[in-house]
This record gives sequence, structure tokens and C-alpha cells, in this order.
Amino acid sequence: MTSIDVSVSLADRSYVVSIGPGVLDGASGRLTALTRARKVPVVTDSAVAGLHLDRLRAGLAGFELVPIVVPAGEGAKSFATLEQVVDRLLALEVTRQDVVIALGGGVVGDLTGFAAAIVKRGMNFIQVPTTLLAMVDSSVGGKTGINTSAGKNLVGAFHQPLAVWADLDCLTTLPPREMKAGYAEIVKYGLISDPAFYAWCEANAARLLAGEAGPLAHAVAQSCRAKAAIVAADERETNDIRALLNLGHTFGHALEAETGFSDRLLHGEAVAIGMAQALRFSARRGLMPAAAAARFTQHLEGVGMMAWPREAGIAPDAASRLVAHMRQDKKRTSDGLPFILARGLGDSFVAKDVPLADVQAFLETDLQHVPSERAAA
Amino acid sequence: MTSIDVSVSLADRSYVVSIGPGVLDGASGRLTALTRARKVPVVTDSAVAGLHLDRLRAGLAGFELVPIVVPAGEGAKSFATLEQVVDRLLALEVTRQDVVIALGGGVVGDLTGFAAAIVKRGMNFIQVPTTLLAMVDSSVGGKTGINTSAGKNLVGAFHQPLAVWADLDCLTTLPPREMKAGYAEIVKYGLISDPAFYAWCEANAARLLAGEAGPLAHAVAQSCRAKAAIVAADERETNDIRALLNLGHTFGHALEAETGFSDRLLHGEAVAIGMAQALRFSARRGLMPAAAAARFTQHLEGVGMMAWPREAGIAPDAASRLVAHMRQDKKRTSDGLPFILARGLGDSFVAKDVPLADVQAFLETDLQHVPSERAAA
Repeated sequence: MTSIDVSVSLADRSYVVSIGPGVLDGASGRLTALTRARKVPVVTDSAVAGLHLDRLRAGLAGFELVPIVVPAGEGAKSFATLEQVVDRLLALEVTRQDVVIALGGGVVGDLTGFAAAIVKRGMNFIQVPTTLLAMVDSSVGGKTGINTSAGKNLVGAFHQPLAVWADLDCLTTLPPREMKAGYAEIVKYGLISDPAFYAWCEANAARLLAGEAGPLAHAVAQSCRAKAAIVAADERETNDIRALLNLGHTFGHALEAETGFSDRLLHGEAVAIGMAQALRFSARRGLMPAAAAARFTQHLEGVGMMAWPREAGIAPDAASRLVAHMRQDKKRTSDGLPFILARGLGDSFVAKDVPLADVQAFLETDLQHVPSERAAA
Repeated sequence: MTSIDVSVSLADRSYVVSIGPGVLDGASGRLTALTRARKVPVVTDSAVAGLHLDRLRAGLAGFELVPIVVPAGEGAKSFATLEQVVDRLLALEVTRQDVVIALGGGVVGDLTGFAAAIVKRGMNFIQVPTTLLAMVDSSVGGKTGINTSAGKNLVGAFHQPLAVWADLDCLTTLPPREMKAGYAEIVKYGLISDPAFYAWCEANAARLLAGEAGPLAHAVAQSCRAKAAIVAADERETNDIRALLNLGHTFGHALEAETGFSDRLLHGEAVAIGMAQALRFSARRGLMPAAAAARFTQHLEGVGMMAWPREAGIAPDAASRLVAHMRQDKKRTSDGLPFILARGLGDSFVAKDVPLADVQAFLETDLQHVPSERAAA
């Protein structure tokens, strides 16, 4: 199959996300069209380098790649690693017109994008996402950044890539758990505003998670299109539209904080549970039928994904701690913390008047649902 | 006298530079109009804090100021200090709508502006420049950043302030040497494209350097207007217009590099010598009359400013080293290094086809002019 191109329209910073198997095989031609530089730094991590760097090098025959390898894992999103990457780029005497490639998952993309944003106040970069989550989430939107002791992604910049090359062949080495984590962000676009795509997800999730290129390409393209439309309308997250992308994220972020942002709970896993919670909370508030919320919970369970906080090892008495984590959420403004709630599957909206006491009462109930109930059902 | 307001028009990021004595006395009203926050972090340095923090605090009665004091000097423009400032801001749980004030010279402004640019991907900041150089240079344009081992200002962001409060009373404690360094950037705007303002500078420089509020207010306002017009036309330095602001800076930057970016030669002093060199080089290339170039050199000498590299202690055999520094200039692109040259006093332009060999030949001659010649004249 040929690749699908999705345009992200942002005035003078528009770019194309190329999606499909074999995208990297044609990388040389793609890059030649984008830059005159012949020496190209590639930031990647120690795990991804062994899996995909040779393929990128083969695809970019004629270019001199200069690998900048950072440690694998979330720890690389630090000031210390950022400074190392920036120093390496400056030592290469890059100009603003030069290109740095980010080869890896969300960590490498966020770190590299932020380094590119601040080197000489902004140089070009290309995202080569190697995880499903990075393909559908961080590929579009221009959010880059690092973590600090105060929290995740609290330091960063909006910086759009010159291009995104989403090669589905990179997913053949991705563990099933990470495929599912990526799928959470895909089905999210259905839940936000696209009932038809939500239905498609229900029907095709199993094939997609099995790695079939056709469903994968459609799902990644549809997700990128949906995110691109939202980002184009609200590039710097100054109004409510872009906030819809946070469906499941306020609940999910609290779960991640409670599990110490560790491998115990991947970001996508937290978002999946968080979306199920947002729908169950919406149903509890009488905004949508309880059956619709249950349908999504059952869909997650049907493809072997977690839908309840207790499945992630959250303690039954965690409600007040989860609410305390929400108070620290960086989306909180002087207006309070916005929640994304729903009127149905594919009809979400931003709610700013949600009392945290109501959230806590909901969580106390939601935390009573234990994983064993599913097995018993 | 009342303050002069200069508008910097940048679409949704427009702001006003308020210039005059006593601007800080009305700061409370100004700030109330700009934010709902009551707690306001103030980044300043250990030298400025003792001079101006109490006045700012008095002017901002009703607000709770939280000082974040960094070491005085260029060393504060580092990743380490940036991380400290960012961590302090995050510990205060600032939101994007909150405001951080930069109270100090260019170092504090550049560091604070960059911290504000990256905290939560961009929070508001207000510049309170306390040096003449900062009032006319870093107040307008949104360039923020830090230094690395590879060079000055190689890491940063474009981030516009919410407002600039240029209180001329802050200049009463400024050493004469720093007043002169600031004046270099003022007369630059005359030299770039405004012969009438250049003539005004020649006639009024002595009163301005003596600290007279009237000439100071006019000069700061005129400089901000000139820079604002250029920045509005080219916010992110993507075409040649903004490059004109670099008049004297390519020569000057090489002088700073040769003197180790130390107190031996202030940035403004280097720019003054660099502008005199750019004009003398333009005359040598037959672009402008030698008499016009000499007139500017004599103007600098007339107000007790350096106009020749040897006065700054540059060695007579430094030409090849100065050119080597230019090759490292961050303004260099794959097209080469642009020089700002002039056809007359107030008629500058960007020249991209200047062979560095010609620059070196000029420097070899220019470095023969020794300071003692002036005393002997």
C-alpha cells in the first residue's frame, strides 16, 4: 500500500504527516525536498537506536547522519539531557535552517522538539515516531517539553515539525501493551466528536492491535486528521477547543501521579481508564445514558485493556489522593480545573463548573469496582 | 513630565512600553489592568535588588511580590540558573495567565523572559529594565535566552512581554560607562535609517548621558518606536529587515569574543566600535564618503566613547582571529555571514556578498589606528 499524507495546516508552519508501511524507505527523497543540509543529527534513545537507526540510515542514503543517543525512558525528559542534546547540536554548528530528526517514541519526540525549539531560538526538526502513541499523539500539535520535579511536561514550547514520517513498519517490534496504550489515544478521537469513527474503532480494534497495516493506517490517519483540525483551530491552546484533546487525561493524570509515573501504568493505559471514568462520571451526572458509558467500558475490556482504576493497582481508599493530584494539574487556571465530559459516545464537551467534591464522591464509588468482578461476570 | 507610551504591534501579542520618570510609582494600577493574580514573582539580581526592589514593591502596593534573586552578571544566563528560576516559578504553582516580572538589565530580562517562555509552554512576563541598554534594546523584540559554552544567546525563544515599564529614575544609579553603552544602541537607530534622529543624537548626546529626563525619554521612545517598527515587520527574524538591527554587531561580536566576553568590553561598547568599523569599512568599499564615516567616529570620541578596537585593548595582529570569531557568528547561514553596511549616516543595508578576505584586509588597516593618536591630535 502507498502512504497516506495528512496535512496539518498552521499558516506558515504547515506540514505533512506521511503514514504507511515503508515510509522510511523513501526518506531520502522526502528530506531532499525539505532541506539543503547534508549532515543531519538524529536524536534517538539507546533502545530505539538498535531497532530502527539502521533502517533510517538506509532510507537516508546520501545524507550523513550524526546519532545523538539519549538514555531510554522518561528520565531523558530532563534539563540535564536537554542541555546535553543542545550542546551536541551547537557543537555541530547547526543553523536555524538545518534539520534534526527525532527517532523514537514520545519521550524522544518531546525532548528533541524542545531542543530544536530553543537552539538558536528555533531550528527545524522532523518527527519519526516509532510507537503507535507517538504517531497519533505527539506527531501533531507541536507540544514539546521536559519534566521537572514539579511534574511532567511543565517546561516546554510549542514548536511544529517540518514533517512527520510515521512508518508503520516500526510498529512490528512494539510490545502489545504499548500498542494498546497507543490505541487509547486513537479511540479518543471517536469519543470526542466522531461517532462513526468510534463505531469503526469498536469494529476494527482487534485487527489494528494485531498489527494489520490497513486498519492501522486508517486509524493513524484519522487520528492525525482529527487532531490537526483541533490544533489548527487553537494552536496555542488558548480556548476550549484544544482542551477536548484532554478527554480522559485529568482522571488519567491523577492515576499516573498515584502510581508514581512508572511503568506500572503507561500513559495510554491511564488515558483509557480515565476516558472510561469520564464517561461513567458523565453518566452519574445524568449527562449521558449509563448504557453508553458501559458500552465503552466493555469495549476496552473486550480488547483486553484496563477500564477501571483498581485494575491498575489503585487502592480502594485513593479517592482523596486522586483529587489532590488533580489540584496540581497544570491545566488548572484561576477559573478552576476543566473536565472533559460527554453527552454520548462521540459528543464530548468542556465542563468548567465541576465541583471537585462531586469528583471525589464519584471516585469513591468507582474505586469499589474490583478487577475480579470482570472475571466473575 | 508624564510618561510616553510606545505601542509594539504584534497581532495578538501587542504590548506597550511605558517610558518616563516615575513609571514604577503607578505600577499598581498598570498591573491591575493586566492580571487578576495577586502574587507576583519578581526575578532580579543581587545587585539590582538592593537598588530598585523596594521602589517596585512600593509601586505595587496591594500585590504580594515574591523575589527570585539570581547572581549578578552574565553568568546567570546559564542552564543551571534557568532551571533554578523555572523550579522556583513552578513551586509557586504559577499558571499561564500569571505574570513574572523581570527587574534588571539585559541579563535578567533575557533569563526571565526565557523562563517565562518555557514554563507551562509560556506564561506572561513584564520587563522592568533598569539599564539604558535594556530599555532600548531588550525591551522590544521578544528575544530571550541564555548562553552556552558554544556562545552567547545560542539558546532561547521569541517571547513577547505583557508590558515594559521603563522608569528613567532607575538610571540615576547607573554608572556613566553603562549609560554610554546604552547610548550606542540608541544612536544605532539613527544610523540604520533615520538621518534626522542621528542629527538629534549628535546634538543631544551630552545632555542624555548626563541623565536629563527630557532627552532620555525622547531617545528611549524613539529607539523603541524604531525597533518596534522593524520587529513588527519581521517578528521572527525571517527576512532581512530585522537584520538591520545588527548594525555594528558582527564587528562588535568579534571584539567581544576576542576580549573573552568580559567586563573589559561591554556589549554596548563593542557595538559602538563595531558601528564605527562598519561605517569605515563601508567607506573603504566606496559605498559612502570617508568624511561621513569619520564624522561618526568623531562623534563617539566627542562624548568620550571608544571608536577603535585598539582602545579596547585589541592587539594589532588580531585581524585573522577576529575573522575567525565572525565565522562562528550565529547569524551565519548556509548563504554566508550578512554584514550591515551603509551608504550614509542613516542609510544602512544588508550586504550578503562580503568576502571575509576583504573584511580581514580592512581589519588589518583598522587595527593600526592606536588610541594615542587621538590624544595627539
